[in-house]
Amino acid sequence: MTGTTLDDYTDRYARRVRGMTASEIRALFAVASRPEVVSLAGGAPYIAALPLDAVGEMLGRLGAEHGATTLQYGIGQGTPELRERICEVMALSGIDASCGASPEDVVVTVGGQQALDLVARLFLDPGDVVLAEGPTYVGALGVFQAAQAQVAHVPMDDEGLIPEALETAIADLARAGRRVKFLYTIPTYQNPTGVTLSEERRERVLDICERAGLLVVEDDPYGQLGFEGEAPAPLRARRRDGVFYLSTFSKTFAPGLRVGWILAPHAVRDKLVIASEAQILCPSGYAQAAVSTYLGTMPWRQQLKVYREVYRERRDAMLDALADLMPDGTTWTTPAGGLFVWATLPDGLDSKAMMPRAIAARVAYVPGTGFYADGTGSGNMRLNFSFPPPERIREGVRRLAGVMEQEIAMRKVFGAVGGAGPRRRQGGSDAPGPDLA
Amino acid sequence: MTGTTLDDYTDRYARRVRGMTASEIRALFAVASRPEVVSLAGGAPYIAALPLDAVGEMLGRLGAEHGATTLQYGIGQGTPELRERICEVMALSGIDASCGASPEDVVVTVGGQQALDLVARLFLDPGDVVLAEGPTYVGALGVFQAAQAQVAHVPMDDEGLIPEALETAIADLARAGRRVKFLYTIPTYQNPTGVTLSEERRERVLDICERAGLLVVEDDPYGQLGFEGEAPAPLRARRRDGVFYLSTFSKTFAPGLRVGWILAPHAVRDKLVIASEAQILCPSGYAQAAVSTYLGTMPWRQQLKVYREVYRERRDAMLDALADLMPDGTTWTTPAGGLFVWATLPDGLDSKAMMPRAIAARVAYVPGTGFYADGTGSGNMRLNFSFPPPERIREGVRRLAGVMEQEIAMRKVFGAVGGAGPRRRQGGSDAPGPDLA
Repeated sequence: MTGTTLDDYTDRYARRVRGMTASEIRALFAVASRPEVVSLAGGAPYIAALPLDAVGEMLGRLGAEHGATTLQYGIGQGTPELRERICEVMALSGIDASCGASPEDVVVTVGGQQALDLVARLFLDPGDVVLAEGPTYVGALGVFQAAQAQVAHVPMDDEGLIPEALETAIADLARAGRRVKFLYTIPTYQNPTGVTLSEERRERVLDICERAGLLVVEDDPYGQLGFEGEAPAPLRARRRDGVFYLSTFSKTFAPGLRVGWILAPHAVRDKLVIASEAQILCPSGYAQAAVSTYLGTMPWRQQLKVYREVYRERRDAMLDALADLMPDGTTWTTPAGGLFVWATLPDGLDSKAMMPRAIAARVAYVPGTGFYADGTGSGNMRLNFSFPPPERIREGVRRLAGVMEQEIAMRKVFGAVGGAGPRRRQGGSDAPGPDLA
Repeated sequence: MTGTTLDDYTDRYARRVRGMTASEIRALFAVASRPEVVSLAGGAPYIAALPLDAVGEMLGRLGAEHGATTLQYGIGQGTPELRERICEVMALSGIDASCGASPEDVVVTVGGQQALDLVARLFLDPGDVVLAEGPTYVGALGVFQAAQAQVAHVPMDDEGLIPEALETAIADLARAGRRVKFLYTIPTYQNPTGVTLSEERRERVLDICERAGLLVVEDDPYGQLGFEGEAPAPLRARRRDGVFYLSTFSKTFAPGLRVGWILAPHAVRDKLVIASEAQILCPSGYAQAAVSTYLGTMPWRQQLKVYREVYRERRDAMLDALADLMPDGTTWTTPAGGLFVWATLPDGLDSKAMMPRAIAARVAYVPGTGFYADGTGSGNMRLNFSFPPPERIREGVRRLAGVMEQEIAMRKVFGAVGGAGPRRRQGGSDAPGPDLA
């Protein structure tokens, strides 16, 4: 069997990944990681804000004193210690025993990504439809694509997902005879927009899904990173049933440990554990001990405050720089938490086509197209403010503004540049129904 | 939506895990972990043989001095440092540059389990057939079941997979119009039998698969744990193409870190990375740094020798105890490495039915039925010798022999006990063709 034959073999049979190509964002990150480039493209927490000496000491003890258990196999659901701690963390945002949250129904996962993949594995069959905000998390699009499901984007505005658009989407899909499995939503400090679903809309979205018999998959990696007081309570805090709650320690502690979780409806908890065992046997006992010991012995609430302060300062630096430097016609969101600002470019600019020139000017961002399953979003970009320090953020925005000014000037002289055509949608609320991709 | 409705929803839609029930082995381990029980049921390495103080110190430094990278996000394929080290490890068993092994084609995974799951994800569609030894690794059966594939077991004898039976199975399945995707095999110190595919058969198995255009998935977690000199070279060392090589640091370093890998044919390497990103985004940077630093700075070859010596002593203790204590008519394999002995019970005994009485006698094992997709194996049991110390092994075998003697005596008086019926097959070579399950 030669390499070519194997290639044929793969092409013939590998249906599950048919259509997958190396992610544009992955390729982009390789370029963006050069030191001379100001990267506003990432989504990484500012790990240097952790007390690394103390964390290192704790990690050492977990190996030296508890290695016989932490370095050994564990159980598929995750350690009871960590699942208890996770319930303490969720209780901070109102998900507690009063709404049925229990360590029994927590499944520890390899970051938030595996949490999402497990839910997809449990529920999605090829040809199914998933409703999701437009734009949405690029990693979720990868999961749904791998499951051969289609994504119907529901438009957002400054208050998040638009309930009327959700109702229309559900009705349209029902009329078209499509099988919709769940709504995937990041209601708080959303990735990529930074937008938060308002208090009033949370109830309406839940009611709509309940009436339609639709499950809700609530992804909440950023909920504890608010800059302006508390966010509205998570959807799971409002409904005991019908909501899968997914979160992670990647933004509040350390992504390199790969520890996330699902709080699952009790009826399917065991199925999730079995699916996870088939995938990874068990989550890392060492990483779980690291997180539960961190939560049990170190001042993690104080550390959350540190992260919030660092990120608020950086968000402010970004908003100030955008206001001072961006060309007329540019707009952007004003996130009350999280890691990202979502910018809408002046008419006629194409964030994807502009990318090579931005890299040449030593600044990187993620083009909006990465966050839609249907190729829209070329009029948008995602800007990260959690990782670069304030002065680098300002410098990055300055370089970006320079590139955009040039594009606008060239466009005035030569017409559209870099293949930018008419944009189909910009993530606004103008699209009335679902856009199947 | 109530819990009941959700349950209905799950039952209606969760096709991928339909038929999954809480694993018998999982339930068994919960009982077997009681301190008064001698567990021969596990598959855990003897972590206490590691220099835990030194490992702990290393782990501490990785956090304190390198936390800004080790605790951060990484790339989906795994760090270049670890992939280089993995190639050094593979070179020990003859998989080196001369047969095309390169860090470029290594994909780091969450233990060997994710490695297997990724290959299944890439290649298996519902209804496909996978060829595998009978018996085979229980976790592989879970992966294939989750992928809705069927397993056709190929019989083994003391030299491993029987080439003639493999040929017959392929021909029968072809005649039946079945789509066979790959041969899954653990050629060296197999789980659960401890049997090693002989030198001569390795070439024949490869030739048969090559002629049939079948990929080979070679799972090799135990290859470096030989007690009697070197094992025959892995299949991947003999063929550049058509073989996926899977392994893990779970048996040679620490399962609690969950680090394994795939050496993939170059043509599909990138597809595996994309599939892994959709599943877990990236493997733990911290766990990868722990393994690559362990391999780079600590005497890991010496540690392998320590493991080999500890396990050889325990294997000998088990073989001696079996020879001294087992009732007539019991037979067992004589593993030259690895963690397991596979025992065949005297006619009429049923390892699954006998389990509650064994637990009452404070000894645990895994009934052979766990290692077949088709429910056969009730005349066999898997006995682990890597974890319990020699005197506990002997005590466990003594208790087990007592239970068996009692079963035999009761059988003489009352006939078959505990629902033991005629056994369909005992993992021997008497079954001529594939047995689809």
